Amino acid sequence: MKNYKHEHKIMNENTAKLSLLAYNPVSFVETVVQDIRDCTQLRQEHEVMWINLDGVKDSKQVKKVGMYFDLHPLLIEDICNTNIRPKIEFYQDHIFVSLKMLSYQREEKNLFIEQVSLILGNNYILSFQEDIEGDVFEPIREKIRKQHNGKVRNSNAAYLFYSMLDAIVDGYTITLEDINEGLEKLEEEIIEKEAERNPTKELYEFRKKLKSVYKHINPVREISSVLLRTENDTMKSVQQLQKVHIYLQDVNDHTLQVIENAEAYIDATANLLDLYLSILSNKTNDVMKFLTIFSSIFLPLTFIAGVYGMNFEKMPELHFEYGYYAVWGLMLAIALGTYWYFKNKRLF
Amino acid sequence: MKNYKHEHKIMNENTAKLSLLAYNPVSFVETVVQDIRDCTQLRQEHEVMWINLDGVKDSKQVKKVGMYFDLHPLLIEDICNTNIRPKIEFYQDHIFVSLKMLSYQREEKNLFIEQVSLILGNNYILSFQEDIEGDVFEPIREKIRKQHNGKVRNSNAAYLFYSMLDAIVDGYTITLEDINEGLEKLEEEIIEKEAERNPTKELYEFRKKLKSVYKHINPVREISSVLLRTENDTMKSVQQLQKVHIYLQDVNDHTLQVIENAEAYIDATANLLDLYLSILSNKTNDVMKFLTIFSSIFLPLTFIAGVYGMNFEKMPELHFEYGYYAVWGLMLAIALGTYWYFKNKRLF
Amino acid sequence: MKNYKHEHKIMNENTAKLSLLAYNPVSFVETVVQDIRDCTQLRQEHEVMWINLDGVKDSKQVKKVGMYFDLHPLLIEDICNTNIRPKIEFYQDHIFVSLKMLSYQREEKNLFIEQVSLILGNNYILSFQEDIEGDVFEPIREKIRKQHNGKVRNSNAAYLFYSMLDAIVDGYTITLEDINEGLEKLEEEIIEKEAERNPTKELYEFRKKLKSVYKHINPVREISSVLLRTENDTMKSVQQLQKVHIYLQDVNDHTLQVIENAEAYIDATANLLDLYLSILSNKTNDVMKFLTIFSSIFLPLTFIAGVYGMNFEKMPELHFEYGYYAVWGLMLAIALGTYWYFKNKRLF
Amino acid sequence: MKNYKHEHKIMNENTAKLSLLAYNPVSFVETVVQDIRDCTQLRQEHEVMWINLDGVKDSKQVKKVGMYFDLHPLLIEDICNTNIRPKIEFYQDHIFVSLKMLSYQREEKNLFIEQVSLILGNNYILSFQEDIEGDVFEPIREKIRKQHNGKVRNSNAAYLFYSMLDAIVDGYTITLEDINEGLEKLEEEIIEKEAERNPTKELYEFRKKLKSVYKHINPVREISSVLLRTENDTMKSVQQLQKVHIYLQDVNDHTLQVIENAEAYIDATANLLDLYLSILSNKTNDVMKFLTIFSSIFLPLTFIAGVYGMNFEKMPELHFEYGYYAVWGLMLAIALGTYWYFKNKRLF
Amino acid sequence: MKNYKHEHKIMNENTAKLSLLAYNPVSFVETVVQDIRDCTQLRQEHEVMWINLDGVKDSKQVKKVGMYFDLHPLLIEDICNTNIRPKIEFYQDHIFVSLKMLSYQREEKNLFIEQVSLILGNNYILSFQEDIEGDVFEPIREKIRKQHNGKVRNSNAAYLFYSMLDAIVDGYTITLEDINEGLEKLEEEIIEKEAERNPTKELYEFRKKLKSVYKHINPVREISSVLLRTENDTMKSVQQLQKVHIYLQDVNDHTLQVIENAEAYIDATANLLDLYLSILSNKTNDVMKFLTIFSSIFLPLTFIAGVYGMNFEKMPELHFEYGYYAVWGLMLAIALGTYWYFKNKRLF
Repeated sequence: MKNYKHEHKIMNENTAKLSLLAYNPVSFVETVVQDIRDCTQLRQEHEVMWINLDGVKDSKQVKKVGMYFDLHPLLIEDICNTNIRPKIEFYQDHIFVSLKMLSYQREEKNLFIEQVSLILGNNYILSFQEDIEGDVFEPIREKIRKQHNGKVRNSNAAYLFYSMLDAIVDGYTITLEDINEGLEKLEEEIIEKEAERNPTKELYEFRKKLKSVYKHINPVREISSVLLRTENDTMKSVQQLQKVHIYLQDVNDHTLQVIENAEAYIDATANLLDLYLSILSNKTNDVMKFLTIFSSIFLPLTFIAGVYGMNFEKMPELHFEYGYYAVWGLMLAIALGTYWYFKNKRLF
Repeated sequence: MKNYKHEHKIMNENTAKLSLLAYNPVSFVETVVQDIRDCTQLRQEHEVMWINLDGVKDSKQVKKVGMYFDLHPLLIEDICNTNIRPKIEFYQDHIFVSLKMLSYQREEKNLFIEQVSLILGNNYILSFQEDIEGDVFEPIREKIRKQHNGKVRNSNAAYLFYSMLDAIVDGYTITLEDINEGLEKLEEEIIEKEAERNPTKELYEFRKKLKSVYKHINPVREISSVLLRTENDTMKSVQQLQKVHIYLQDVNDHTLQVIENAEAYIDATANLLDLYLSILSNKTNDVMKFLTIFSSIFLPLTFIAGVYGMNFEKMPELHFEYGYYAVWGLMLAIALGTYWYFKNKRLF
Repeated sequence: MKNYKHEHKIMNENTAKLSLLAYNPVSFVETVVQDIRDCTQLRQEHEVMWINLDGVKDSKQVKKVGMYFDLHPLLIEDICNTNIRPKIEFYQDHIFVSLKMLSYQREEKNLFIEQVSLILGNNYILSFQEDIEGDVFEPIREKIRKQHNGKVRNSNAAYLFYSMLDAIVDGYTITLEDINEGLEKLEEEIIEKEAERNPTKELYEFRKKLKSVYKHINPVREISSVLLRTENDTMKSVQQLQKVHIYLQDVNDHTLQVIENAEAYIDATANLLDLYLSILSNKTNDVMKFLTIFSSIFLPLTFIAGVYGMNFEKMPELHFEYGYYAVWGLMLAIALGTYWYFKNKRLF
Repeated sequence: MKNYKHEHKIMNENTAKLSLLAYNPVSFVETVVQDIRDCTQLRQEHEVMWINLDGVKDSKQVKKVGMYFDLHPLLIEDICNTNIRPKIEFYQDHIFVSLKMLSYQREEKNLFIEQVSLILGNNYILSFQEDIEGDVFEPIREKIRKQHNGKVRNSNAAYLFYSMLDAIVDGYTITLEDINEGLEKLEEEIIEKEAERNPTKELYEFRKKLKSVYKHINPVREISSVLLRTENDTMKSVQQLQKVHIYLQDVNDHTLQVIENAEAYIDATANLLDLYLSILSNKTNDVMKFLTIFSSIFLPLTFIAGVYGMNFEKMPELHFEYGYYAVWGLMLAIALGTYWYFKNKRLF
Repeated sequence: MKNYKHEHKIMNENTAKLSLLAYNPVSFVETVVQDIRDCTQLRQEHEVMWINLDGVKDSKQVKKVGMYFDLHPLLIEDICNTNIRPKIEFYQDHIFVSLKMLSYQREEKNLFIEQVSLILGNNYILSFQEDIEGDVFEPIREKIRKQHNGKVRNSNAAYLFYSMLDAIVDGYTITLEDINEGLEKLEEEIIEKEAERNPTKELYEFRKKLKSVYKHINPVREISSVLLRTENDTMKSVQQLQKVHIYLQDVNDHTLQVIENAEAYIDATANLLDLYLSILSNKTNDVMKFLTIFSSIFLPLTFIAGVYGMNFEKMPELHFEYGYYAVWGLMLAIALGTYWYFKNKRLF
C-alpha cells in the first residue's frame, strides 16, 4: 500500500505476481500462475475461480490478463491508473469495481492507501492490487482453505465478491478506529493538562488524514447503493448479484456507518481545535490580567520611591522624623488598596 | 445501558434473561422463560405475544430465539452487534428495527446508550436489549397488566410495536430536555456572571453529548418515514402496519421534532461559545486598555522623578526655592492631562 | 400567548372560552357558547360556522368539542399538547392544521408564541387557541361583522380558512419586522459609535429569538405547499380548497418570503457579530500599539536618568559643565528619534 | 428606484404616468395615455402593444388598467405591493412576472431597487414600475423606434417580453460588476498597504449590499426555469412563449451566471475579512514581540542603575576606580546578550 | 489564454486564424484556410473535418464560419462573448459546448483561462478559441498526423469530440496539481518553520485562484452528465454520441474527480489558514507569558532599589553593616521565588 502522501515505492515494473485460487464445495486449488492461459482447465473443474494480481505497475501482465478475460481497453487503463476515483461499471459479462484498501500504523501515524480493482465475472473474480505485499483478503483465503462446509466454499462467485467488499469496508472501520484512538488521546491531553502543549499541528495532521480517508470512502456509498439497485436488471452480469442481495445490503449498512463515523471524526477535530483555542484565549486573558494587576501595584510604588530619591535642596518630607516610615505606610496602603480594588470590583 | 464513552460493563455472557408477556382482551400471562420452545402453546392461546431478551452479549440465547422464530443469520448477527447504525429491514414474515434507547443522569452528566432490536412478526413482538437492567417499556407493561379495556390489550401486535417505538422516541425527548436544562444553566451563568468561570470544557462536553445523541436519533427519521410509506405494500409482514398507520404518523412527527430539537441545541452550544469568546475578547480589550492608561500616566512621572534624582553637579532646578513643589505640580499636570486625553478623545 | 422562554402562565384549567361566529351573506350570529351541542341549529341556518376555543389547557372542553365534531383521539391530543411541531393532516371529513401565532413587544423585547389549531370541516372552522386572551383574527371578525358584501361573508369555509392562515402569516411578518427594527438600531450603534458598548449579549438574544421564530415558521412552508398540491385529490375534505387555490398560492408566497426574511435576519446577526469583533480586534491592536510606542519612548529615558542617578565616586559626566543639559539633549534626541522611527517605518 | 435601505421617496400618489408603445413591422405609435380605454383602437391596428405605468403607488390608476385587461384582484394587489418576492404566475390569458430592477451608483455607493411587474398577454405587454423615473428598457424602445427591420419589430409580444427580461438581467450583471469594482479596490488596498486602514465597515457594507442583491435575484432562477419548462403546456397564455424558447434559454443562462457571480462576490467579502483579520493578528503579534524585546532589554538595565543609585553606607563597588565603567560594561553585555538571545533562539 | 485577473491581451481584431484538419483512415489534410467556403470539397473527401478558429474577437470571421455551417445567431453570439458560463446546447444538426481551457505557470503563479467553444456536427468539429496562441489539442493533432492506424483516425467525429473534451479536462487536472504543489510547499513551510513568515496573503491568492478554477470547472459536471444521458434521444445530432458512450463515461469520471480535488484543495487552504492562526495565537500567548514573567521579576526588584535610593534623613537600613548585602539577598530571594512560583504553579 502507498502512504497517503503519495510516496510511491520504487519497484521493478515487471514484478507483478499472479496467483489463483479455485474452489468448489469438494476441493480447492491454490497456485501461483506464470501464464494466464494455464488457468483455462482449472476454470472448468471448479465452481469459482479467483485470480489475484499484485502490482498493477506491471501493465503488460495486467493487459495479458485483461485480454484473456476480454476486458475493455478503458477498463484495463483504469486498473493500471492508481489515482482513479472509486467507481463501479457494468459490462455485459462482468462488473468492474475500483476502490481503495486502507490501513494505518498507530505508532508511526502513517496512513496507507492501496487501490484494488475487482471484476466479478460469470464464475470468476479478478482482483488487481496496486502493491505486491499485504491485503485484507487473507481471512477469506483461510476460510476457503479450511472451511469446506463454509458459506464461501458453497456459494457462487458473487458471494466471494461480497466477502471481498466486506473485508475492504471492515478495513475502513479499523483504520478509522485506529485514527480516532489517537484523536481521543489528544482530546484527553487537551482537557486534562489544560492545553499545555500546542496540539495544533497534530490536530491538523489528524484532520488531513481523516479528510483523505473520507475522500476515498465516500464514493463507496454510491457503489454499494448501485449494487443494491440491480434487482430488476436483465444484464447477465448482475443476475448472480441477486442471490447475495441481503449480503450487499449488509455491506451498504456498514459503508453508511463508516462514512458517518468519518464525518463525525472530522467534525471532532474542528471541535477540538475550537476547544484548544478557547482555552488558549482564556489563558492569554489570564496572563494579561496578571501583568496588569502586577503593573498597577508596582508602577505607583516605584514612582513614589523615585519622588523621594530626587535631589531637590528643599524637600521637607525628607527631614520628617518618621518620613521614611510614613512613605512605607503610604506605599503599603496603595498596594493593598489596589489589590482590594481588583478583588472587589471584578473590574475585569 | 452503556455510557456514551463506550465503557462496557463487564458481565457474564451467559446471563441473558428471557421474559414473555402474552395477552388478549380477556387475559394476560407474564412469565420468565427458560427455553424458548415453552412458549409455543402460549402463542396459540393469546392474540399478541411479546418476548423480551435482556443481554444480547449472550449470543447463544439470541441464536436459540432467532432460530425458533426463523430469523436470518445476518439479522441475528445484527442483534448481537451492539454498534450498528439504527435501521429497518423488511423480511417476508417480519419487520426488523434496530435503534438506541437513550437516558441521561442530570447530576453526573452521564449519557447512557443502549441498543434495542425490535422484530414485529405476525402476532408477536421480539425485543432484544443490550443490557440486563432498565428499559423504557415499563409503562407499556403496566398498561397491559392493568387496563384490560385499554387500547393495547384490544389491538394487534402492530399497535404494541407502535407503543414501543413511541416510548423510545419519548425517551429521546426526555434525554434531550435533560441535557438542555444543563445547557440553559450554563447560558445563564455566562450571561449573568459575565463569563467569570471558563465554561469552554463544559460546552465542549455538552456539544459532544448532543452530537452523539444526534448521531443515534437521526437515522430514526428514515426508519419512521419508511414505516409510513408501506401503505400499498403486499408483503405479509407490513400489512398489519396499515391498521396503525395514523399512529406511525404520530411517531414520525415526534421523531422529526426531536431531531429538530437536537439540531437546535447543537446550534445553541456553538452560539454560546461565540458569546463567551466575544465577552472574553471584550474583557481582554478592557484589561489592555487599563494597563495602557495606567502605564501612560506613570511612565512619564517616574521618568521625571528619575531626572531630578540624577547627581549632576550643576542642575539649577534643584536649587530653586520651590523646585520640588514645581515638579509635583508638573507631574500632577501631566497625570491629569493624560487622564483627560483618554477620557475625551476616546482614542481607543 | 406564551413567552418563548417557556414561562407558562398559571391559569385555571377549567376556563376555556368557547365562542361561535356563524354567517351567511344575509346575516351573522356571534355568541359565547356554553354547551357545544347548542350550536347544531345555528349550523343549519348559516353557510359557515366558526367555533373558537380559547385555552386548550382545559382538555375536557376540547374533548367535548372534538367528540361533537367526531375528531380522532390523536388529533384531540395534538390540540391539547402545546409543544407540537407545526403540521397538517388530512382526514376524510376535515383538514387539521396546527401552527403558532407570534407577537413581539418592541419595548420589553419579549417574543410571545401561542399555538393555534385549525380544523376545516365541510362548512365549519374550528380554531383552538393556547391562551385565553388575544389573537390575530380580530380583523377577520370585523370584516364578517361589517362587510356583508365582503368576500368573506360571500364565500365558503375554505375562504375563511385562508383568511385565518393569511392573518397568522401576516403576524409572522410583523413580528420579524419588529425584531429587525431592534437589530437595525444595534447595527447603527455599532457602526457609528465604533462599538463603544459591548453588544454581544444583545446580539445573542436577537439571534436566539430569530432562531426560535425560524423554528416555528419553517415547517409552515411544508403546510402551505401541501395545501397547494391538493388539486387532483378526491378526498371530500380537500375539494373546497380548490375554490380558493389562488388564495392559497398567495399564502404560500408570503410564507416563502417571511422564511427568507428570517434567514436573512439570522444571517445579519452573525455578520454584525463579525463586524463588532473585527472592530474590537482593531481597537485592541491600536491600544497595544499605543502602549508599545509609549513604552519604547520612556523606557530608555528612565534608564538614562537612572544611570546618572548612580552614586559611583568616579562618574566624569557628572562634573561636566553642561552635563545635565547634554543629557537632556540626549534624551530629547532619543525620544524624537523613536517617534520618527515609528512614524516613518510604519513598522507595525 | 428606491435605495436598498428602504428610504422611500415621498411622492404624490396620484402621479402615475401611463405611456403606450404599439408597433408592427410597418409602423409604430408612442404616446402618453390619459385613459386606458383610449388604447382599444391602437390595439387593433398594431401587432404588439406595450403599456407602461410608472408609479404603482397610484393604486387607482393600476386598478383601472387592471380592470381593463381583466386582471385578478390578487394580481393587482401584488403589483401595488412593492415588497413582494420575485415570482411568476400563469393565468388563462396572461403570464404575470414580478421582479426587481437594480442599479448602483459607484461614487456614492448607493444601491437602488425598483420593483417591476410584467404581464404578457395575447398581443400586449403591461409593465408596472415602482417609481416614475428611469428604467432599463430605453434601449428596447430605441430599437422599436429606429430599427423597423429589427427583430423586435418583426416578432410577437413574447419576444418583447424576452427583451425586457434580458434587459433586467443585464442590469443585474452591471450592478454586480459595479459593486465588485469597489470590492476589488478594497482588496488591493488591504493587500498592498498591509491593512493600514480598518476596512471592516466597508466590507460589511459591501457584504450587506451583495446579500440584498442576491436576495432579489435568486428567485429569478425559478422564474426563468419555469418559463423554460412550459414547452408542452396547452394554456393559451404560454403558447407564444414557445416561439422564443431559445431566447428564454439565453435569459436562463445569464440568470444562472449572475447568481453564481453574486455568490462568488459574497464569498469574496468573507475571504477578504479573513485576510484582513489574519494580517491584523500578525501585526498585533509583531507589536507584542517588539514590546517584549524592548522591555526585556531595558528592565534589567534600569534595575542595575537603580541598584547603584541606592544610598547604603557601605557599597564597595561605588568606590572602585573603574566601577562606573564596569557597570556600563555589564549593562552593555546584558543588552547585547538579550538581543543575541532573541535573535538566535527564535524563542517566539 | 487570458490571466484570471481579466487582463485582456490587446490584439488586432481582424487576426482570427482559421485552420483545417481533415482525415480518414487513409489520408489527412492540414491547412490554413482563407475563406471558409474553400473547405466544401475537402469535406466530401474525408470522413472527419476539424475546423479550428483562433481569436474569437474577430467576430466577422466567426460569423462567416457560423453562417457557412448554419449556426443560430444566439450561438454565434455565445462564441464571441468570452465571459459565458460553461454550457451545452442541443440543436437539430449539431451540439454546442462552451467551456474553458486552463493553464498555470508555476514560477510566476499565473493562472490563464481561455474560452473554447466546440461544435459537433454530422461529420465535422468546429472549435473556436479565445486567443491565438496555444491550446491543449496538440497531442490530438499529433495522433491524427502520425497514427493512421490509431483510434482517432479510424473513428467518427464524436470520437474526436471526446478526445478534445478529454484533453481539456486533463488540462484541469494538471492545472490543479500545479497549484496544489505550491500549496504543499507553503504547508511545509508553515509546519516546519513554525509560521515565521506571514503566509496569509499567499494563502489568500491560492484560495482565490482555486475558487476561480472551481467556478469554471464545476459547470462541466452538468455538461458531461448531460452528454451521458442522451442514450435514447432521437435527435440526429446526438446519435453519433452513442458510439462513444463509454468514452464519455470516462470523461465524466475524470470531471467528477477533478471537481472533488478542487474542493479538497479549497478546503485545504482554509485548514492551512486555521493552522497558521492557531500557531500565531500560541506564539502571541508565549510572548505575553514571557513579558509577564520578566516584568513580574524585575518590577519588584526595581521598586526595592528605588526604596533604598530615597534620600530620607532617617533610614536605619542604610547604616546597617551588611544592609547592602541583605538587600541583594532579598532581591535574589524575590527573583528566585517568583521564578519558582511560575515554574511550579503553572498559573498560566
